[in-house]
Amino acid sequence: MHAVDLIRKKRDGQRLSRSELEFLITGYVRGEIPDYQMAAWNMAVYFKGMEPEEITDLTLIMAQSGDMLDLSAIQGTKVDKHSTGGVGDTTTLIVAPLVASLGIPVAKMSGRGLGHTGGTVDKLESIPGFKVTLSPEEFVQQVNAIGLSLVGQTGQLAPADKLLYALRDVTATVESIPLIASSIMSKKIAAGADGFVLDVKVGSGAFMKSEEDAIALARTMVQIGTLAKRQTVALVTDMNQPLGRGIGNALEVKEAILTLRGEGPQRLTELCIELSVEMLLLAGVTNDRSEARKRLEQSLVEKKALRKFSELIAAQGGDPRVLEDLSLLPQARYTRDIHAPSTGYVQSVDPMVIGVSAMELGAGRENKDTIIDLAVGIELQTEVSGHVREGQVLATLYANDDRKLEQASVNALKAFQIGDARPAARPTIYRKITAKEL
Amino acid sequence: MHAVDLIRKKRDGQRLSRSELEFLITGYVRGEIPDYQMAAWNMAVYFKGMEPEEITDLTLIMAQSGDMLDLSAIQGTKVDKHSTGGVGDTTTLIVAPLVASLGIPVAKMSGRGLGHTGGTVDKLESIPGFKVTLSPEEFVQQVNAIGLSLVGQTGQLAPADKLLYALRDVTATVESIPLIASSIMSKKIAAGADGFVLDVKVGSGAFMKSEEDAIALARTMVQIGTLAKRQTVALVTDMNQPLGRGIGNALEVKEAILTLRGEGPQRLTELCIELSVEMLLLAGVTNDRSEARKRLEQSLVEKKALRKFSELIAAQGGDPRVLEDLSLLPQARYTRDIHAPSTGYVQSVDPMVIGVSAMELGAGRENKDTIIDLAVGIELQTEVSGHVREGQVLATLYANDDRKLEQASVNALKAFQIGDARPAARPTIYRKITAKEL
Repeated sequence: MHAVDLIRKKRDGQRLSRSELEFLITGYVRGEIPDYQMAAWNMAVYFKGMEPEEITDLTLIMAQSGDMLDLSAIQGTKVDKHSTGGVGDTTTLIVAPLVASLGIPVAKMSGRGLGHTGGTVDKLESIPGFKVTLSPEEFVQQVNAIGLSLVGQTGQLAPADKLLYALRDVTATVESIPLIASSIMSKKIAAGADGFVLDVKVGSGAFMKSEEDAIALARTMVQIGTLAKRQTVALVTDMNQPLGRGIGNALEVKEAILTLRGEGPQRLTELCIELSVEMLLLAGVTNDRSEARKRLEQSLVEKKALRKFSELIAAQGGDPRVLEDLSLLPQARYTRDIHAPSTGYVQSVDPMVIGVSAMELGAGRENKDTIIDLAVGIELQTEVSGHVREGQVLATLYANDDRKLEQASVNALKAFQIGDARPAARPTIYRKITAKEL
Repeated sequence: MHAVDLIRKKRDGQRLSRSELEFLITGYVRGEIPDYQMAAWNMAVYFKGMEPEEITDLTLIMAQSGDMLDLSAIQGTKVDKHSTGGVGDTTTLIVAPLVASLGIPVAKMSGRGLGHTGGTVDKLESIPGFKVTLSPEEFVQQVNAIGLSLVGQTGQLAPADKLLYALRDVTATVESIPLIASSIMSKKIAAGADGFVLDVKVGSGAFMKSEEDAIALARTMVQIGTLAKRQTVALVTDMNQPLGRGIGNALEVKEAILTLRGEGPQRLTELCIELSVEMLLLAGVTNDRSEARKRLEQSLVEKKALRKFSELIAAQGGDPRVLEDLSLLPQARYTRDIHAPSTGYVQSVDPMVIGVSAMELGAGRENKDTIIDLAVGIELQTEVSGHVREGQVLATLYANDDRKLEQASVNALKAFQIGDARPAARPTIYRKITAKEL
């Protein structure tokens, strides 16, 4: 077998067999196949695509290129969730304790963020004392003890994906649905769950700008999961406006706590419940969607989910008093409000502008070496289709550097469009993709 | 400027500007842009193509990446010819002295071959004493003295092309018309001529298998030449059978000598005259095609072309007596005839099978380090649509190793298809592409 022949085969639109993909990927990880051949192959995939079985083979080969987490010591069906990423998307911090509060084991690994705001692991670190690093044994033990653990990546998951992703990043081959889908799913499969609920964001603040592309990505990931014998569903959800009100690490933890108290914003709460419903159904707790929903709402009302979050924080060394006293979260030195320049309805809130402004304040990473400032960020005081009067506060910015605050205030204001007509509300969830619909 | 953005631009089907191509190519030659980025860019070009002006920019940038031969010290219009390569294609050895015999300066650089048989430079080395290496000054002086010089590549012509070609070879991006055309034309332009006559081969023994592809390549090269202000024409010619009877280095020199004596095979003679007509017209010697043809035929009849070849050989240290006494050429130790298995008309003679059999005998290079055996090869004793009786000699093989002879005899016989009906003769020249027709 020669790499050049496999590049040619893909270039000519043919499917590679599992052994051919194995030759390519394991050869690449071993350093036997050079970057330039993988780069040419990636570009050929960009243009010619891959068949579902072929993408699944690639995904499993990448998953098996490193550690494969064994969660078999945890009783029950382990369901993982994944979001392709958006602004003000703090769903994991809400969904994980909410689902766990109903007895479904949640053994979840999350990443750090690169971009506007931190990842789940960064956000968790704004809880005083919270440890995101557990050994695989501690991780499993904790899930068996309290039904929930949220940690950073342990072990070396899917190193082939890491190598390939770095190469794609510098060769303009990131935007390929088979490569995006296999990248996400290889890490998810290596992390050991039995089923996956995927939240594929679409809109100006998401990686997928068009609904068509988002649906294609969602379908491809559900296909991979299904062919890999993991129950998988995907929701295609709106990212044309920030999902929640808080953008920034401690601000998003605060928002998660408020939501678990039943005081969260409507769209965020709604999406968390829908994602949780899917997780309950996949876990086989019930077949009845409306019953699942009822039980989840009850858990919120009875503060069971909030108590589960408290248990999680305590188990991982954090201070659970934060749930009662939000002032224990990191606080920024400076705040500044930005105001509506005119009276009218909020037509749009550009999530990218808000996300980048939060990053400018220090909430996100411009590159891998940036140290995140957990306290800073933006809190929206209005939302799309809300009415505002001239001079009313649109958002509050939190900063530890007043020069940054100055600049970010100017920039963040550009995110808001105000007009006379009340815009129609966008749905939070556009579409659900299940294995049956493929 | 970032390489990744230029890859993305090409991936999305946009034209790169001259300065963008300069950034890419000169950065690559300097080692500042890595192989993997050029590999991805090449594959994007494979799928998205390039515009004529863009290909011309690329060609000129590659030409200017190394030495640019200055032929201005040679009076008159310097016209070069180039063949994309076929089996039994010894046209340069005939056309160069033929054209030079009519007073057109021919300052020609040729390459060594990789594949079935040697290149022009390898063939010339089968003339005892012939020196293929001259300094640029000697090269120019000789053309001014006798109107003709044939040498190997002097100086470092188009190093960017050399690097890019090596990369394309291992990344399945050889078969891209813009990249093939710019590769050929960059070397031609660096070699300094004012105009080019291109012989684009098409058929089973050529790189271009379909007439459509060959025409596209021919058009692209004529476009490049024209935009680069070099008069350029292309002939698309048949390579579904070996062009001449001799395949192998000394055997092709012998065939060139016979053709210059007026005793060459009809198709080879015809193509040489047509290529020479184009060179005369480009050089501006006459505007009248039939007059050009008459003068060329006269040169052959009067042995002026043969005498010019004699002058060339003498000027470059070779023994011109070879023109009278073909036995002075390297002679193989063993010969073997292969015979017609049945009576009938020769339906086809597969040029690839003949070419590869000649290579097995030692006439060509399997890799860069192979040492060519100048004496060996195959001489066809029949041609397509010729009638043969069972047992009649189809071809004679020449070898210095009788084991190789054994094997090559078996293989070479497979090249011949014999049947009852007389097949229609294929034209030698399918099509001419000039700047006017673009």
